[in-house]
Amino acid sequence: MFRLDPAFEATSTPLVSLPLCDVRLQADARFPWVVLVPRIEGAIELDDLLAADRTHLLDEVLAAGRAVRGLGEALGRPVAKLNVGQLGNVTRQLHVHVVGRRPDDAAWPGPVWGHGAAEAYDGPALARALAAAREALSSGAASR
Amino acid sequence: MFRLDPAFEATSTPLVSLPLCDVRLQADARFPWVVLVPRIEGAIELDDLLAADRTHLLDEVLAAGRAVRGLGEALGRPVAKLNVGQLGNVTRQLHVHVVGRRPDDAAWPGPVWGHGAAEAYDGPALARALAAAREALSSGAASR
Repeated sequence: MFRLDPAFEATSTPLVSLPLCDVRLQADARFPWVVLVPRIEGAIELDDLLAADRTHLLDEVLAAGRAVRGLGEALGRPVAKLNVGQLGNVTRQLHVHVVGRRPDDAAWPGPVWGHGAAEAYDGPALARALAAAREALSSGAASR
Repeated sequence: MFRLDPAFEATSTPLVSLPLCDVRLQADARFPWVVLVPRIEGAIELDDLLAADRTHLLDEVLAAGRAVRGLGEALGRPVAKLNVGQLGNVTRQLHVHVVGRRPDDAAWPGPVWGHGAAEAYDGPALARALAAAREALSSGAASR
């Protein structure tokens, strides 16, 4: 049975459940950033997924990109470039990061992973961020 | 018409041409590392690819993972974890990194991108690395 690694609960907040993945908002207000976790027991690498699930994962990575762009707009910092990463060096359960980047962000042009300390969203900002990301996801689905 | 960004020529060596991507060996002996560049003019983000090409790209990312694992074996440093990254903050032309990681490598558990200075392969080591990566790619294709 699939169980989300508790490490994700410490660093992110549930955003939406897509057909394959739990999508979570990374608890770091420095970057519009979501994490996708496929609900596949024991998966660590991409080749642990069946081909059909890999296709779903990529579709959901694109959806996550729309969420991140919507989130960037809502934060007043439109995304200039998406970064997609599947690392798992620390938390092995298969997951994919989708991060919106800008030349004026804290880590540019380096990667965000392991860069400095996360900055928490305050309560109202978190609610706004979740709403903006969900809105971008649902309008993207409607326009397919 | 597609043209490889010259930035890749400075940092990597041609390895093989797959149906969608040019696959290149990153010129950094610290990590078994390949870069895939889809031969699609003007592509920067994943959603610049057609759905069929995205599926090809993911297939080729898996093939690159086999190349990286074969390369790690040949270097006497078997891969413990694959890292896959699509960033493009510095070189915008769409490309995907596939990197073999180990707990004893120079950047573990952080990402490799932007970590320290690349270490060149010497000539014989480069030839061995290219041969090992090509061998892993061709045996993977045969066993499909």
